[in-house]
Amino acid sequence: MTDPSVRDQIHRDVLRSDDSYGLLPEFVTMVHDALEAEDDATVRELVAPLHYADIADLIETLGSEDRARFVRAVKSVFNAEILPELDDAVRAEVIEELGFEDFAACLREVESDDAVYLAGQIEDEDERATVLAKLPAELRAVIEQALALPEFSAGRLMQRELVAVPSYWTVGETIDYLRSGARLPDEFYQIFIVDPRHRPVGNVRLSALLRARRPVRLREIMDPKTAEIPITMDQEEVAFLFRQQNLLSAPVVDASGRLVGRVTVDDVVDVIDEEAEDDMFRLAGLSEGDLFSAVVDTVKSRFTWLLLNLGTAVLASLVIGLFESTLEAVVALAVLMPIVASMGGNAGTQTLTIAVRALATKELTAANATRIVGKEVAIGLINGLVFAVLTGAVSWVWFGNPAIGVVIGAAMIINMVAAGLAGIAIPLVLDRLKVDPAVSSGVFLTTVTDVVGFFAFLGLAAVFIL
Amino acid sequence: MTDPSVRDQIHRDVLRSDDSYGLLPEFVTMVHDALEAEDDATVRELVAPLHYADIADLIETLGSEDRARFVRAVKSVFNAEILPELDDAVRAEVIEELGFEDFAACLREVESDDAVYLAGQIEDEDERATVLAKLPAELRAVIEQALALPEFSAGRLMQRELVAVPSYWTVGETIDYLRSGARLPDEFYQIFIVDPRHRPVGNVRLSALLRARRPVRLREIMDPKTAEIPITMDQEEVAFLFRQQNLLSAPVVDASGRLVGRVTVDDVVDVIDEEAEDDMFRLAGLSEGDLFSAVVDTVKSRFTWLLLNLGTAVLASLVIGLFESTLEAVVALAVLMPIVASMGGNAGTQTLTIAVRALATKELTAANATRIVGKEVAIGLINGLVFAVLTGAVSWVWFGNPAIGVVIGAAMIINMVAAGLAGIAIPLVLDRLKVDPAVSSGVFLTTVTDVVGFFAFLGLAAVFIL
Repeated sequence: MTDPSVRDQIHRDVLRSDDSYGLLPEFVTMVHDALEAEDDATVRELVAPLHYADIADLIETLGSEDRARFVRAVKSVFNAEILPELDDAVRAEVIEELGFEDFAACLREVESDDAVYLAGQIEDEDERATVLAKLPAELRAVIEQALALPEFSAGRLMQRELVAVPSYWTVGETIDYLRSGARLPDEFYQIFIVDPRHRPVGNVRLSALLRARRPVRLREIMDPKTAEIPITMDQEEVAFLFRQQNLLSAPVVDASGRLVGRVTVDDVVDVIDEEAEDDMFRLAGLSEGDLFSAVVDTVKSRFTWLLLNLGTAVLASLVIGLFESTLEAVVALAVLMPIVASMGGNAGTQTLTIAVRALATKELTAANATRIVGKEVAIGLINGLVFAVLTGAVSWVWFGNPAIGVVIGAAMIINMVAAGLAGIAIPLVLDRLKVDPAVSSGVFLTTVTDVVGFFAFLGLAAVFIL
Repeated sequence: MTDPSVRDQIHRDVLRSDDSYGLLPEFVTMVHDALEAEDDATVRELVAPLHYADIADLIETLGSEDRARFVRAVKSVFNAEILPELDDAVRAEVIEELGFEDFAACLREVESDDAVYLAGQIEDEDERATVLAKLPAELRAVIEQALALPEFSAGRLMQRELVAVPSYWTVGETIDYLRSGARLPDEFYQIFIVDPRHRPVGNVRLSALLRARRPVRLREIMDPKTAEIPITMDQEEVAFLFRQQNLLSAPVVDASGRLVGRVTVDDVVDVIDEEAEDDMFRLAGLSEGDLFSAVVDTVKSRFTWLLLNLGTAVLASLVIGLFESTLEAVVALAVLMPIVASMGGNAGTQTLTIAVRALATKELTAANATRIVGKEVAIGLINGLVFAVLTGAVSWVWFGNPAIGVVIGAAMIINMVAAGLAGIAIPLVLDRLKVDPAVSSGVFLTTVTDVVGFFAFLGLAAVFIL
């Protein structure tokens, strides 16, 4: 299997299909079989042509036992770049299998922002100290400084390596400096222009630098100063700025305005991705992605939401309990009552999801909140009327009782309006109170739509049918 | 207000707060007041210092009437870059207000990928032809070619402007070529290396080019060929690749492997963002973000999901209807029955959300599906047991009847296992059938958890309590 043409064959045949990227199951099976057979040499040969991101995907796809065997098999040739790409739960397993010594070696290999990120993932203070002790003093200092900053801040995200030169330099001087072998980052997308106090005053795109002639001064081709990122700024704000202004990289400044680092778009892509994903997960009552977590951890992380939901469900039952005598008299009400609550819950969730996302992307702000609330109530009213007619007609025919049709229709209108109002008002209020609306809105919404739904339907029935 | 220091003051005081980006409501109010007073000069002065992305946000934030007035006020100085940043519904309003002539002028100003995107947004064929007729022949040809490609394909996303040179060129020759004023894109992040048949064979990062000495040949500093993007590839696959491999830009090739364009990360950021957002919206039964849509359009777009949900709710009612006599005999069952269905629905949604997201990010594949299904069923069983004890105890105490406690507990276990199984199996099956699991999984899931929930609870009660 050492024949390169065989490797190419693997790459073509089992690694990727024609119109989509990603590992093919056949390839994963080949790796699994080699692991089962404890044939480490074949494992190493199979993954040798892979991009580090593909190896990360492969490690995630393997079962827990295979995962440990895989890490042992490739330990001697382990690519440090794999680590930042892994899911948190999987990464913890891999690091444990690598051991402190090899993990510290990985930290030395990756760029400073990745080293900070990886070191920050070790939650146990003693373990982290053990790993940091194995690093060169300079890198250790960088990591310790960054970890002292708030989690999810720009300072955690930034790279310290950058190119900064004064504005009076010429294009020629700058290119000579870059060629001089000065200590430079591996990759950079722009050159920051700084004043004598090392504050950013602008930046030069590399394409502009390459196009200009040698005697041109940088100040003539630099872009006027764009957004600076304070080192303590939350990463979601950083992501907003990058997305809004299509930035590739941006300068990070300390409290006195000095240039201390840069954030690059590849790190921000991960933040943007996580941001939308987190909101999606939170709306469903998940504290985090738990696909690769152990069963017991997953049960724990999902428990709180289910318990809260049980509270809501019991509350709804208490409301129903108020009308036991009504239900005894007209059992048809018990048959129909989930419809009103369920429709309210679904309509409210539509509004809620739009509101939570719009708050995250700053499309919903104090400036347009009133208008949007009005719109959602109007939509609730219209949908309420439409579904009142539909449901009322069905119920009338089903139970041959027009009064039931009228009652369920009226309850539908009330609950749909309540759902629209609650769906927009709850996240707005939580956001104003600085509570993440994605985390908690759902419980409040279900409470409103269940309580209003059952109360309106059974209450109206108690008054008008009995 | 023409004094630049006043403008700076606005910029500092009302445009942005200290620790977050985005328009402040005070600023929006100032613009609104100027629009009300029909003071177009002030409107133009207020927005003059703004980034085009901020102006796009401002337009979105304004009400529909203000929006039209705003466009009329700034028409003479309208920045074409604003258009791609707008929400679809808002953009349609702005384009209508601009008129075909000014819209065509905008298409000429933006880069080719944005021009393709904007032209593609005009759905009416005749209107599109009218606009295209106002463009120079070359740009029109580019747009028409791109629009002939499938929507959401790499060809729609790519820019045609790029820098491609042969590998035998030296660094010096390349820099001279870039300085020669040859027709080059405004901005480029890498130089593509092509063979004599114009097929990509590698790329040179600009930072590597700047660091190398003039006599060095490009082949010595080029990165080996990385992923190529077929022109027909779906944009979600493109986004997957960029995210996975942290790419800045990548070559797009036609069917014969020739380099025809490049996709850059700023366009992919939008795709990544939309992808997660779309899944989040679809899970909630929204066909698209409708925050800025008119009420009537919003009602229409949300109607289908609510109608489907009504179907599910009626189905659940039919199940309940099977047990009318049981409910008449023990009305406590009617009080408790929503609890089992609701808990199942919530547990199932947790699993479903994880599965839909993991399918989108390719973390859940045929290679690990069996293991994940097993895990979710195990979680359903454990949560079922825990909540069976809790709910059973509460119900026993509430109604003083141990049999009711046992029945609700048993039903809870059954429904939680069903929820876990359905939550993972439904999206897997839909994905295998090439149906987007985010769109349709929810309805199937609710049907399962409602039907199983009510049937198990009332059925067990009919057997063991009556």
